[in-house]
Amino acid sequence: MAIPYPHFIASEKAAMDAGLLLPSQPSIILTQDDLKKIAAYKAVEYVESGMVIGLGTGSTAKHAVARIGELLRQGKLKDIVGIPTSRMTHEQALSVGIPLSDLDSHPVIDLAIDGADEVDPYLNLVKGRGGSLLREKMVEGACKKFLVIVDESKLVNYIGGTGLAMPVEVIQFCWKFTASKLQKLFQESGCEAKLRTFGEKKEPFVTDNGNYIIDLYFKASIGDLKVASDSILNLAGVVEHGMFLDMATTVIIAGELGLTVKNK
Amino acid sequence: MAIPYPHFIASEKAAMDAGLLLPSQPSIILTQDDLKKIAAYKAVEYVESGMVIGLGTGSTAKHAVARIGELLRQGKLKDIVGIPTSRMTHEQALSVGIPLSDLDSHPVIDLAIDGADEVDPYLNLVKGRGGSLLREKMVEGACKKFLVIVDESKLVNYIGGTGLAMPVEVIQFCWKFTASKLQKLFQESGCEAKLRTFGEKKEPFVTDNGNYIIDLYFKASIGDLKVASDSILNLAGVVEHGMFLDMATTVIIAGELGLTVKNK
Repeated sequence: MAIPYPHFIASEKAAMDAGLLLPSQPSIILTQDDLKKIAAYKAVEYVESGMVIGLGTGSTAKHAVARIGELLRQGKLKDIVGIPTSRMTHEQALSVGIPLSDLDSHPVIDLAIDGADEVDPYLNLVKGRGGSLLREKMVEGACKKFLVIVDESKLVNYIGGTGLAMPVEVIQFCWKFTASKLQKLFQESGCEAKLRTFGEKKEPFVTDNGNYIIDLYFKASIGDLKVASDSILNLAGVVEHGMFLDMATTVIIAGELGLTVKNK
Repeated sequence: MAIPYPHFIASEKAAMDAGLLLPSQPSIILTQDDLKKIAAYKAVEYVESGMVIGLGTGSTAKHAVARIGELLRQGKLKDIVGIPTSRMTHEQALSVGIPLSDLDSHPVIDLAIDGADEVDPYLNLVKGRGGSLLREKMVEGACKKFLVIVDESKLVNYIGGTGLAMPVEVIQFCWKFTASKLQKLFQESGCEAKLRTFGEKKEPFVTDNGNYIIDLYFKASIGDLKVASDSILNLAGVVEHGMFLDMATTVIIAGELGLTVKNK
């Protein structure tokens, strides 16, 4: 059951501060970025002073990082330590004044907040379209609580259901060979494996860890996700995949009609 | 049942050519390197003209690479394509005149020859003390036949039985965190996890793929190897491990009393 925004805004004032919409302006159309920001602000309500916080990467998570920085500056939060999941988030967190550390120094994290590319009905996720899946998985696997923030377009009936990519991080060495192995693994689901590229020259996208990304596109469900995960990880050449199974503890979904919070 | 060397030498002439020992000199003591060479030469007998051959890495495999080069120069082998498992082997193979290619161009390999650090009674292996476990696993996983060549010191009752390292390739990012996760995974086997270093300054050893190696030392058997393998690969941060399960099709063991060939 979604909580309508007027209630959320009246109780939190957060969205109003952000200039998103006012209770007296119900006819304003929310953009996808507005929805991301609303979900992110809601998630940051879970952050308490003294916590070690995993900081996600991407267009939704960046709103959460900015908000934490804002609350620190306002003195509403204190003694926060942030563990960034990418170089990009590292830079952003520094710029908004969040003190940073890493997993080696803080192997247990109180709370992580991050976006996702897909969320299935069991709160399994696809992440990594932004290319940071490995560090995200390391940090978010070390959390007591993992809050996922999405707009409603990310909800799917099954992993791969958006028709968009499920990314797999692979070593550069013989990536074509690995891509073809991956495609074969899921040929019954109509899998297509493509090297992620960027720019006009279509150069391979390189992750923070110096690896490539193979994007898998499925035409149908890949079945048991744990079996799929093990099969992918068993391929030599694969470093990590973008399915985050049984990791999210809470998913906050911002839709046009309001906020929904799903707990594991 | 080991084949005694006089028979092997009389029938093959290979060891004599290599100046290893003569039937008339039974009192010569074979060094460990002699045994490695004998096993390697025996393995190269399986190589036929026209084959695509996976070329292993390390002190035993280098004898096989040298021997293949020798037979090519002598015209006894023709139309060989080598797929090297490391930059080091790539260099050596070029220097002895073996034409090279890669897995992307030759996704199916007829035969691979490589050493191993441990061989258990079921022909499961530990590999990668030389640091090339990932490329070796990719190449040797693509083979119709995988010949393993070892001296008898590599035979163990269980994986880890030599008391030497079982290597795990991990990404550099937060390697201490990953090492501690690995150690915890096998704490019941008295596992100790150490970063591999080199030189006087004890700098981290970096693999061909830009990763680190965590060496695991066990005091007791780690139990079901498939379960252990899945647990290791499920850790975000792990790229690959050095257990080669159910991959070797033939193991050639050179001992002081002769050669033994074990088939799967």
